[in-house]
Amino acid sequence: MPQDDQQASAVLTDDELRGLDAHWRAANYLAAGQIYLLANPLLTEPLSPEHIKPRLLGHWGTSPGLNLVYTHLNRVIKARGLDALCVWGPGHGGPSVLANSWLEGSYSEIYPDVSRDAAGMGRLFRQFSFPGGVPSHVAPDVPGSVHEGGELGYSLAHAYGAAFDNPDLLVACVIGDGEAETGPLAASWHSNKFLDPVHDGAVLPILHLNGYKIANPAVLARIPEPELDALLRGYGHDPIHVTGDDPVQTHRALAEAFDRALDRIAGIQRAAREGGAGERPRWPVIVLRTPKGFTGPAEVDGKPVAGTWRAHQVPLSGVRDDPEHLRQLEAWLRSYRPEELFDAEGRPTADVLSCVPEGPRRLGAGPHANGGLLTRALPLPDPDRFAVAVDRPGGSTHEPTRVLGDYLEEVVRDTAARRNFRLVGPDETASNRLDAVYESSGKAWQAQILQVDEHLDRHGRVMEVLSEHLCQGWLEGYLLTGRHGLFSCYEAFVHIVDSMVNQHVKWLRTARELHWRAPVPSLNYLLTSHVWRQDHNGFSHQDPGFVDHVLNRSPEVVRVYLPPDANTLLSVTDHVLRTRDYVNVIVAGKQPCFDWLSMDQARAHCARGAGTWDWAGTETGDREPDVVLACAGDVPTQEVLAAAQLLRRHLPELAVRVVNVVDIARLMPQGEHPHGMSDFEYDGLFTTDKPVIFAYHGYPWLIHRLAYRRTGHPDLHVRGYKEMGTTTTPFDMVVRNDLDRYRLVMDVIDRVPGLAVRAAAVRQRMADARTRHHAWIRAHGTDLPEVADWTWTG
Amino acid sequence: MPQDDQQASAVLTDDELRGLDAHWRAANYLAAGQIYLLANPLLTEPLSPEHIKPRLLGHWGTSPGLNLVYTHLNRVIKARGLDALCVWGPGHGGPSVLANSWLEGSYSEIYPDVSRDAAGMGRLFRQFSFPGGVPSHVAPDVPGSVHEGGELGYSLAHAYGAAFDNPDLLVACVIGDGEAETGPLAASWHSNKFLDPVHDGAVLPILHLNGYKIANPAVLARIPEPELDALLRGYGHDPIHVTGDDPVQTHRALAEAFDRALDRIAGIQRAAREGGAGERPRWPVIVLRTPKGFTGPAEVDGKPVAGTWRAHQVPLSGVRDDPEHLRQLEAWLRSYRPEELFDAEGRPTADVLSCVPEGPRRLGAGPHANGGLLTRALPLPDPDRFAVAVDRPGGSTHEPTRVLGDYLEEVVRDTAARRNFRLVGPDETASNRLDAVYESSGKAWQAQILQVDEHLDRHGRVMEVLSEHLCQGWLEGYLLTGRHGLFSCYEAFVHIVDSMVNQHVKWLRTARELHWRAPVPSLNYLLTSHVWRQDHNGFSHQDPGFVDHVLNRSPEVVRVYLPPDANTLLSVTDHVLRTRDYVNVIVAGKQPCFDWLSMDQARAHCARGAGTWDWAGTETGDREPDVVLACAGDVPTQEVLAAAQLLRRHLPELAVRVVNVVDIARLMPQGEHPHGMSDFEYDGLFTTDKPVIFAYHGYPWLIHRLAYRRTGHPDLHVRGYKEMGTTTTPFDMVVRNDLDRYRLVMDVIDRVPGLAVRAAAVRQRMADARTRHHAWIRAHGTDLPEVADWTWTG
Repeated sequence: MPQDDQQASAVLTDDELRGLDAHWRAANYLAAGQIYLLANPLLTEPLSPEHIKPRLLGHWGTSPGLNLVYTHLNRVIKARGLDALCVWGPGHGGPSVLANSWLEGSYSEIYPDVSRDAAGMGRLFRQFSFPGGVPSHVAPDVPGSVHEGGELGYSLAHAYGAAFDNPDLLVACVIGDGEAETGPLAASWHSNKFLDPVHDGAVLPILHLNGYKIANPAVLARIPEPELDALLRGYGHDPIHVTGDDPVQTHRALAEAFDRALDRIAGIQRAAREGGAGERPRWPVIVLRTPKGFTGPAEVDGKPVAGTWRAHQVPLSGVRDDPEHLRQLEAWLRSYRPEELFDAEGRPTADVLSCVPEGPRRLGAGPHANGGLLTRALPLPDPDRFAVAVDRPGGSTHEPTRVLGDYLEEVVRDTAARRNFRLVGPDETASNRLDAVYESSGKAWQAQILQVDEHLDRHGRVMEVLSEHLCQGWLEGYLLTGRHGLFSCYEAFVHIVDSMVNQHVKWLRTARELHWRAPVPSLNYLLTSHVWRQDHNGFSHQDPGFVDHVLNRSPEVVRVYLPPDANTLLSVTDHVLRTRDYVNVIVAGKQPCFDWLSMDQARAHCARGAGTWDWAGTETGDREPDVVLACAGDVPTQEVLAAAQLLRRHLPELAVRVVNVVDIARLMPQGEHPHGMSDFEYDGLFTTDKPVIFAYHGYPWLIHRLAYRRTGHPDLHVRGYKEMGTTTTPFDMVVRNDLDRYRLVMDVIDRVPGLAVRAAAVRQRMADARTRHHAWIRAHGTDLPEVADWTWTG
Repeated sequence: MPQDDQQASAVLTDDELRGLDAHWRAANYLAAGQIYLLANPLLTEPLSPEHIKPRLLGHWGTSPGLNLVYTHLNRVIKARGLDALCVWGPGHGGPSVLANSWLEGSYSEIYPDVSRDAAGMGRLFRQFSFPGGVPSHVAPDVPGSVHEGGELGYSLAHAYGAAFDNPDLLVACVIGDGEAETGPLAASWHSNKFLDPVHDGAVLPILHLNGYKIANPAVLARIPEPELDALLRGYGHDPIHVTGDDPVQTHRALAEAFDRALDRIAGIQRAAREGGAGERPRWPVIVLRTPKGFTGPAEVDGKPVAGTWRAHQVPLSGVRDDPEHLRQLEAWLRSYRPEELFDAEGRPTADVLSCVPEGPRRLGAGPHANGGLLTRALPLPDPDRFAVAVDRPGGSTHEPTRVLGDYLEEVVRDTAARRNFRLVGPDETASNRLDAVYESSGKAWQAQILQVDEHLDRHGRVMEVLSEHLCQGWLEGYLLTGRHGLFSCYEAFVHIVDSMVNQHVKWLRTARELHWRAPVPSLNYLLTSHVWRQDHNGFSHQDPGFVDHVLNRSPEVVRVYLPPDANTLLSVTDHVLRTRDYVNVIVAGKQPCFDWLSMDQARAHCARGAGTWDWAGTETGDREPDVVLACAGDVPTQEVLAAAQLLRRHLPELAVRVVNVVDIARLMPQGEHPHGMSDFEYDGLFTTDKPVIFAYHGYPWLIHRLAYRRTGHPDLHVRGYKEMGTTTTPFDMVVRNDLDRYRLVMDVIDRVPGLAVRAAAVRQRMADARTRHHAWIRAHGTDLPEVADWTWTG
């Protein structure tokens, strides 16, 4: 096992130690104060029940550990002049981080009302977990935060995302022993195989073992230390263990650990940046083992509290009614000796502030944690240069994502120097046909490289790992620190990150309302390898429901696009890469697809988000159509156009309008989504009383959920994926789900009143074609030649 | 580090070696045959293009490794008389597992058409990845499978789930090096801290490093072996490394590894079962390192294939057009010497079958993998014994989940001997107020136990780990092997397993269509700590969308219940624990909630799924009501009843009907869900033309999506959660989302035509109450006394 290559350099002077301890005590006092106090913040009078909040909410258990880390990070940032960011992983870390940012002054700079004095301290206490106040997590309103710690599991991935392409940044990351049990966190340890010591910053994980979760011990706190040590070495780290339940000894050990870790990081970076490629470095990790609720009540009502799960939330719960609890609370709060920590006006003393760095070096004031401040717009190429030529609709086919790959290759190339764009995906970049990007950047990889490998790159900016959680977590961290990216994913498996996107949308929704947070680049998904083309993967790979999931979220934040061909995909992507503070979902196929629109047409169509394709329909003059054939998604568009062609041939007198929808939120009422159409627009496009046969890419009821308030809704009939999935051919998939051209024609005939008698024969002909399909596929395993060879002839 | 306590006992005889190799070659031949051959299965004539499938689909890369494991498992099962199950984790393992089950005869017993002869071999080949045939994953149609391997990450959790409470079962689990990068798999390694060597079976993980995923090397294959070894020791395992690219040497090494591993497992189990509690055992893990596509083409078109990512899918893709590819394919297939492996009729030779165990010991024929065969109904207590007494509606309050906890405690107690019920949850059993269950069983825990701990139990059946993925994966494995369980979870965070529930629903949907699969106990969720009561957790903990997610899935499988009080929760739970092959979602609060229905009433109401609460409304005689106030969920029910009471007081002449919906799918059309109401029923309950004000627990548009086809839909107005979340009081939450009693009364007044002039004054009074609320909460941080102290008086 590797030895430390640097001698630990930290020996605290007594002054330093006193300052650190004062800062820690002050933070602990402020954390406990937030949970309990409504008045008398400085304990200038004896504590009485009316000083106590009516509802005691909040979590003490994790606070002293986080305060310890914040205090010691302050020391090393100041001593070494570091640019640092800290990701606070443990749940309910709010009281701690709020306390520290108030101490360092960054909080009051943003929220002047919560001033750094007694009045402000009172407000700091009152607002915590109070209606209209601040939540108990390290939410967006907390300065210095890029990670809430509400839903656990993502801290380390966020930390890596923040560190990528930030070579001068130190990203510390506190991982709770609860969070460490989650899958996403467990996977995140291997992120060090993707961190480039030359172009990326450093991540310093601090695994905080306080031993307990809500009501149970934590696994990693209950395995022998050599086993934990082996685990961390197996993750590729070099562990530094700090265990303490005595403040002085803990300060000394933790200071030494930080110095060792930072010396080691400096050594790694120096070697990589000066000496070029070497072995994959073994980055340090600090294992900090301190009691849960350290310095809080040891025993309450005869039961041990500090150092147990009972310290998790509110250790003394009866303080308003139980004089003994009140007495214990007062003794606890006074044990920090607030009179030494704050002056008569409630301002922190010089001793308390002696370890705190200045200005933007303070953790609550660094620009990376308000990444929009640092965002540089992407140098985006003109999509025209990548557009496919379209002389007539449907005259050619392209693989849309392959066309997009060429465009992205240029984005990757043009960001080679500034390094502010990353493409992430779970081992699917090539499978999703975006492999052109490798011309501009290889795949980030710090593990072993063999002769046979292709496109692996110690300095690559294309990220591939078989973990949607890591892709998402890395990208979130990257975006929240102000850079840009795109996540390409198999459509079905993006559900793996359903809960992560929820949290990111919530973050953006909340951050948008904060005056001081600058907008950050949007989170962009490219969902491909979609439900209709899982020819050999079958049912387990068929799920178009992410769109439904996303559209349940805050409409201010979410956008969904279903470009029907290559040029519309280019146009949509060019758009989303310019946006801020959104979650953009693009669904597009990778299989050959007809080119319907020229680039100019595509641009105009995408700008409208939905529109009539006059060339595809049979409307004439000012007369309203007899029926609207609407479509959203590449495969539905193809089937609708094929149906329109059949109708033109067999029922030429029928006035058919073809409408294509790219931006699905256009269907929503204007008041419910910023992209929602007015009723005037909607009625103009879809009519108020003509049948609308809508072929949709995903679950059909989504369209009803979006459009149920529209006048014409009673005559809206939607076809889409209805869980009739299996391993089969492309056309069989649409037949199974009643989305095929023949079924659509039958739908039209069934819905349009007063058709010629001949229509019944046409309907039978369509039904016969479906029967013919079933027989053919059983015999040949392929699609009917008339379908496989179909092209649009108008 | 621990030493093996047993000497390796395997020395293969030459005969054994020959038999193993023959079996492996046969399986490899059959796997490749499935990918390529449409005819000429035994290569009795020279291979020509017309023998080749028109579309080459399938994945060769993983097959030889899986075949090797299957072959060697056969040997040890036979030699040791084991009851075994294998979970095949790698994606696209279909060709391999199908080949092996065909060889051992289990496949043909289930599918006689695919007989164990040349004709059957032809069908085996043809059906693979063919329309109407079988998918390329180890899907439900594959005998012996409880795990599809489509969406990666869950194999090891499934394996542990299968092993719990199956003391005589060996569960082998092949983990691909791709899957090993996922979060859920990374977390699953720690499952060994929850496996009781006395009452549970053994899990033998086999980490298969073939080096590559689709297009990238795998992380664990590219770290130094000592680092990987440390990682696995850190996970608490004792690794046995087998590396080989020579068949004979690999057979010998793998046989020895299996014998060492099984000796060690036997030793652990013997010690635990005879000697009582000792140290947590270090279970073995086999690390098998063989080339991807081992024995397949070494080079194609001048590029290396075997041992690289190029072997992932179809190594020779041009065989129908390129004579050189065809020649290479023929040479490859003939390299297995099929003439030695199959007799003239295409039956496997005695040599091939020499390692195969008999009857139900065959991996494809074991009953555990068709767990419904082994299912024993739960001994469920009479819910009446746990019911809360209800003299009059709303006369008392209870915490519904705490009442349920008493019921579950008895279920846990009554299954103490048979051990076929487990309760899982992410560290939330106590937080969700189900802690009564600890009276009957402690929490499963094999790591260190301290004096201060409570309810930790080496033999516990309550499972708590801070990983929703593990809870879900364990439970799935437990259910699919025929046992019962319940997963209690915070409502917002169950989205973490969105994709897992998708896959489980797909499994059940497919399995239900297979004549030979016996129904298995349902997957039951209890979602609590729900959106309306996140008083101190705030926005990040507020998300009721899992219901929407689940209702997008196959209606044959999914059921959703929103019991409004304690007795209805008892009734619903009693029901779901009796069901098979469903995913049941129950949403119920843990906070004090009014008791509305007696147990008899609750039972009748839940059986109907939706019904009028006559006592709550003001209808008289046969007259239709003026308005319907509908509700689903505990908080909406309370607000609707409060609104009904306000209406009764202020507008007594208004005929109000109160409808409560427990089974939300009742709202769907009859043809779209088995629980869907007929239009006749729906119209009788909701009327066809009266305004319906529906207060729903979750996203309001869900109700529209379910009911949009109903006659009365244009006058259906839904209130629900619309993402207006924050840290605040219970009543403020409903006000923010316009679900409060005052708003509902205003809605009624706004929608019912022809109300008395006085109604305008009532409306103003309601608006004033909302204003009063806002002022009060700002001042006091609590809810208005009139709300906090509200009770139903009728």
